Amino acid sequence: MTKGRLEAFSDGVIAILITIMVLELKIPEGADAEALRHMLPEFLTYLLSFVYLGIYWVNHHHMLHMAERINGKILWANLHLLFWLSLVPAATAWLGKSHLATLPTVVYGAVMLCPAIAYYILQNAIIAEDGPGSRLGAAVGRDYKGKVSPLLYASAIGLAFVNPWISNAIFVLVALMWLVPDPRIEQRLRG
Amino acid sequence: MTKGRLEAFSDGVIAILITIMVLELKIPEGADAEALRHMLPEFLTYLLSFVYLGIYWVNHHHMLHMAERINGKILWANLHLLFWLSLVPAATAWLGKSHLATLPTVVYGAVMLCPAIAYYILQNAIIAEDGPGSRLGAAVGRDYKGKVSPLLYASAIGLAFVNPWISNAIFVLVALMWLVPDPRIEQRLRG
Amino acid sequence: MTKGRLEAFSDGVIAILITIMVLELKIPEGADAEALRHMLPEFLTYLLSFVYLGIYWVNHHHMLHMAERINGKILWANLHLLFWLSLVPAATAWLGKSHLATLPTVVYGAVMLCPAIAYYILQNAIIAEDGPGSRLGAAVGRDYKGKVSPLLYASAIGLAFVNPWISNAIFVLVALMWLVPDPRIEQRLRG
Amino acid sequence: MTKGRLEAFSDGVIAILITIMVLELKIPEGADAEALRHMLPEFLTYLLSFVYLGIYWVNHHHMLHMAERINGKILWANLHLLFWLSLVPAATAWLGKSHLATLPTVVYGAVMLCPAIAYYILQNAIIAEDGPGSRLGAAVGRDYKGKVSPLLYASAIGLAFVNPWISNAIFVLVALMWLVPDPRIEQRLRG
Repeated sequence: MTKGRLEAFSDGVIAILITIMVLELKIPEGADAEALRHMLPEFLTYLLSFVYLGIYWVNHHHMLHMAERINGKILWANLHLLFWLSLVPAATAWLGKSHLATLPTVVYGAVMLCPAIAYYILQNAIIAEDGPGSRLGAAVGRDYKGKVSPLLYASAIGLAFVNPWISNAIFVLVALMWLVPDPRIEQRLRG
Repeated sequence: MTKGRLEAFSDGVIAILITIMVLELKIPEGADAEALRHMLPEFLTYLLSFVYLGIYWVNHHHMLHMAERINGKILWANLHLLFWLSLVPAATAWLGKSHLATLPTVVYGAVMLCPAIAYYILQNAIIAEDGPGSRLGAAVGRDYKGKVSPLLYASAIGLAFVNPWISNAIFVLVALMWLVPDPRIEQRLRG
Repeated sequence: MTKGRLEAFSDGVIAILITIMVLELKIPEGADAEALRHMLPEFLTYLLSFVYLGIYWVNHHHMLHMAERINGKILWANLHLLFWLSLVPAATAWLGKSHLATLPTVVYGAVMLCPAIAYYILQNAIIAEDGPGSRLGAAVGRDYKGKVSPLLYASAIGLAFVNPWISNAIFVLVALMWLVPDPRIEQRLRG
Repeated sequence: MTKGRLEAFSDGVIAILITIMVLELKIPEGADAEALRHMLPEFLTYLLSFVYLGIYWVNHHHMLHMAERINGKILWANLHLLFWLSLVPAATAWLGKSHLATLPTVVYGAVMLCPAIAYYILQNAIIAEDGPGSRLGAAVGRDYKGKVSPLLYASAIGLAFVNPWISNAIFVLVALMWLVPDPRIEQRLRG
């Protein structure tokens, strides 16, 4: 029951965040190809953030699937994660509007790094509650993507001061890394 | 469980998209009949897109009802479908604001064609996971509407360069085609 | 399953509509009492529409609680109801902005009358599907509020041409009529 | 069933309110540090309101977990609570925009006091319906936080006329008080 409501609430928040970003896609003034071309950077940052939130939704889904018990600390660790994710639309809009300038890239990187840390805290809270023999604990040991992503985000923040295009390439790279199907997760879903 | 959460998330996104379009209905400045008449094209494109998203919700509902297992590929194929649907409000607003100009009609047609393709990919991912004897696989064989709609959308995109009114008439036609009750779906729901 | 998803989707749409109206509450420019007083008509129309959507949510809840089967016609009758309810935020904003002028009052009345008719159609679709012995069919016979409300809305539309304040008083009256607790519904919930 | 739908609807509304506040975070015009610094007061009031709504969600969750029966009065007491919570985004935006002026602080305090009273009414409606031996009734006796919070909000409203910074410090203090983990709730969740 408690777990079901935690999932439903998280789904609601992520679903709203994903769709709220669409509101930032400003409708072109004219009706010609130029107007459409002008939207391209905003469209691409929207696509990146959609994928990014989609990755969190899929991972959150797998993580809670393996959680056995929920306590008050987990409820708050989850809200903490949702808080950082809630900043994605604003950071996306700023990045798109500035056409990938340095500071908006740094902020976007921070808005990617903080949920990664919050996700880690939430994961540990669930493993602590489930105790030894936690299914999630066993799965996390093999989770190299979850360990590499925060490092890549942190380096993207630093590299933004060299050239923000490198950082944005890293953001795309991390997203692609998660999109590649993972045979172990497939097995867990089927098993 | 996994299926339930996939449905809940999709419902959330579609519910938000349907209601977010209302925000694009700009409140008239004055309080007279002229102000109201001015809203008419926006109102009609809103109505068309509401029906259009409603059709996707109903079909998505029937499709997942018949799905037996969910894997990671299905989660992503579903997010892919939701991504294209999420562009409906912006495309609708542009079409309404431009009073059915050529390029906004082409974009609207593309925003109808892409989810149709995404829906097809999702359908195939579910059938592949369920294997031979898939209930969905059997139902799809008789699904002529699903096969004809993408062709009609594609021809509407081409015809927009001749006359965008023809294309918009096709969009209305496809919507009406789906609204006509389908006795076989009724039977499946009852059976 | 089907019924659960229908309820969840309807809840989602109504929850979003109720909260989207808040976005129309324009933040006062200054920080003094005058700025706050200026918001009063918008606040009161927001309150009225919140109660109005709340009434629909509670009634929809009771109605589906008694429904036994769902078919495709019911799915579409429900979407039809949600379409009319989705116009409430825009109609509310126009009414509040115009300080209760005639035409916005007429439109608001129509946006109250149409969902009442859509609700009636949905009710009949459920009763038809459940057949004789329908629990909903038995309950509806005693539902005088559901029969009186559309008549009051229709008369409010007509009286708006005499004096829109009368119409708005009727809207408040209908809302109050529904807020008075109904001992029979209580009994049904407990029984 | 009824309880599940009440929870789902409340979750939906709170999830939307929490994410709608993000829309008020105006994207900076420039792309430099000054632009970011300018956002700070709005960001901090957003953070406070996010925590505030999070507290309500967690408490609402615990309260309904212990409720055994739902009646029409409870449905409306819940909508009453959601109404006051729905004013949080607007009050937050006004407070942030005015940089913590007196009247916006008073209004924010009222928007914190009213849901506390509505929560109390909802709690009593549930205890009355569950009768003697209510699990919620037993838990409430030890709920000192729920009793102290409204008093602190009321005093914050009064002190805003002396110095709004004192009031805002009180708002932060109340939020922190709720964030401190409560061993008894943990026990209830585990037991």
